[in-house]
Amino acid sequence: MKIKGKSYTTIWLNENDESCVQIIDQRWLPHEVRFADLKTVDDAFTAIKDMWVRGAPLIGGAAAYGMYLASLHFKDNHSVVEQLTEAGNYLNTARPTAVNLAWAVNEQLKAVKQAALLENISLANTQKILKTNAQKICADDIKISESIGENGLAIIEAIYQQKKETVNILTHCNAGWFATIDWGTATAPIYKAHKKGIPIHVWVDETRPRNQGARITAFELEEEGIDYSVIVDNVGGHLMQNKQVDLCIVGTDRTTYCGDVANKIGTYLKALAAWDNNIPFYVALPSTTIDWEIREGKDIPIELRSNEEVKYIYGKTEKGELEKILLTPENANAANYAFDVTPAKYITGLITEKGICEANEKSILSLFPEKALIV
Amino acid sequence: MKIKGKSYTTIWLNENDESCVQIIDQRWLPHEVRFADLKTVDDAFTAIKDMWVRGAPLIGGAAAYGMYLASLHFKDNHSVVEQLTEAGNYLNTARPTAVNLAWAVNEQLKAVKQAALLENISLANTQKILKTNAQKICADDIKISESIGENGLAIIEAIYQQKKETVNILTHCNAGWFATIDWGTATAPIYKAHKKGIPIHVWVDETRPRNQGARITAFELEEEGIDYSVIVDNVGGHLMQNKQVDLCIVGTDRTTYCGDVANKIGTYLKALAAWDNNIPFYVALPSTTIDWEIREGKDIPIELRSNEEVKYIYGKTEKGELEKILLTPENANAANYAFDVTPAKYITGLITEKGICEANEKSILSLFPEKALIV
Repeated sequence: MKIKGKSYTTIWLNENDESCVQIIDQRWLPHEVRFADLKTVDDAFTAIKDMWVRGAPLIGGAAAYGMYLASLHFKDNHSVVEQLTEAGNYLNTARPTAVNLAWAVNEQLKAVKQAALLENISLANTQKILKTNAQKICADDIKISESIGENGLAIIEAIYQQKKETVNILTHCNAGWFATIDWGTATAPIYKAHKKGIPIHVWVDETRPRNQGARITAFELEEEGIDYSVIVDNVGGHLMQNKQVDLCIVGTDRTTYCGDVANKIGTYLKALAAWDNNIPFYVALPSTTIDWEIREGKDIPIELRSNEEVKYIYGKTEKGELEKILLTPENANAANYAFDVTPAKYITGLITEKGICEANEKSILSLFPEKALIV
Repeated sequence: MKIKGKSYTTIWLNENDESCVQIIDQRWLPHEVRFADLKTVDDAFTAIKDMWVRGAPLIGGAAAYGMYLASLHFKDNHSVVEQLTEAGNYLNTARPTAVNLAWAVNEQLKAVKQAALLENISLANTQKILKTNAQKICADDIKISESIGENGLAIIEAIYQQKKETVNILTHCNAGWFATIDWGTATAPIYKAHKKGIPIHVWVDETRPRNQGARITAFELEEEGIDYSVIVDNVGGHLMQNKQVDLCIVGTDRTTYCGDVANKIGTYLKALAAWDNNIPFYVALPSTTIDWEIREGKDIPIELRSNEEVKYIYGKTEKGELEKILLTPENANAANYAFDVTPAKYITGLITEKGICEANEKSILSLFPEKALIV
């Protein structure tokens, strides 16, 4: 998608130097667009852990490239599979909730192991496999996002057909193109609808504590010329009570195969309000975020992050400087749970790359019959 | 209650200069404790409108003193009732949602009109009546808060008897002593329980956009030595799902006589989560916040405040300066609804100065039978 009219993806291999992966460092948005170079697995780890990149699919892409970067620094005389497993274990600890992280790490391991079965694989070949596979994971993710967009577009179109007026969509956090490689998950249907000329207005939950909505979703929509209003996370319920929301679409970091959805903290509260006011509540997701090993949402590990994220906030001063300010008493205790689980019963449907299904095992498996043997 | 060990109320008449009402200017909490002098009705209007003072009962107290301050500058040759009505109309426009504002203005008007019926009332006498009545409104409010505290204490005690461990209470916004004259409404039972030795931990919703929880409730609890954790507004649902909340208590700015509760934006979302997880959800209120003329919550006017409150936030920089920072793209749209309405069906009970009742007309009228003729 676009920044100042120029097309970008969120992560790419430097054209002139293949030892360098480039990203948009999202910590400075919306105030500054900064780029960063990742050259080692440590760089990739830091970028994931400290949220230079975030969003389940993009974390997957960054992890895939992280495995590639790790291999560029391997000792030639060790087993590459052993070294790669170690790098993967390390990357897996960067963030605990997004299932894509472990998925991408595993895809990379699998690719190398498969090749190693056939021949005594050289380090150079390992690196090539990891590079090509990382690029493929990212290219596939873009296709997946576009398919989610096309599938979700049908929901927005149906509302517009009936309403014949601007469709008001509420979203939480950033499941936009900055959370993926391109297009986004929750935003993909919005971008598709906008490109088709359907009038859209997006209620953007600011999404405390890290304000991914106010910072990143708002920035995305602004750059794409889509009408939006930033709201504090407390407002959505009131808007839904007053018929100012036609549809909710959010993303997810991990979804159980029975349809419970772990997503950014606060998603559950919006799902309750949508349910209470008969407003459709959809979750947009690539099937990579479905955890085929977990039945119930209560078994998804929920990341507890530093309380500094609650007590302090970043923003731009009147002088144009980026500054961190304290919001609470100096010595305040704070608790910072990063995700919550929305029970499947409050979810109208899941928008996947394969189509839309209900949030239950049977309906999910109807889209992914090949998984029936696993669960 | 206490600040640095010294007892205060939130508003008082200067002992040495009765033309001056003093307040704690709450805009600087928790970083600085600043006091302000109010000398005119304009000062009182500004203090209410710009939230130097806030909270339904304290707005009432400030409005009562505002009427007194107005009278200090009346033209002697005009009808005092006429001038006072004008001042009251002016004060009433400062904030639209809290019913206590109009109530206090009306109490003052009534007191003067009653006296004027008996005799041709002098300006000096009018001023004396208004002063005494403002002091009485504030003194009564303290008694009311204490009674709410005693009544609510029974709920906390019952939970503690059963649990025998720390009672976890979630509150939204600041319905603490800074929202009243002393003791608070939602916090009054907490302070009473703490003084009785019941171990308490309070989950403090930060309460965006103005962060009255992170700033003021946290400050209050800190100063009173009560254990608390600040959380972003998104977290409460997750905590309730995970049995980390035993009880919710919030305040209200206006409650209909059928039990619908207008309170700080976001209250409705917490009530839904409490309902979904079978957690008692109580609203603490002085009966002055009951609007005996409104049946349904949808008829309560909801204040729409400046979008600057969403886009910018105040806090303390590392250098110790208070600074305003921008959180969104510079030109972002934002919408800032200040209150929402929690339907009575999601409320376990109302804790009033007269006792606890259910949130329905019959139960409310059983505590206030004298109102049966009005509704």
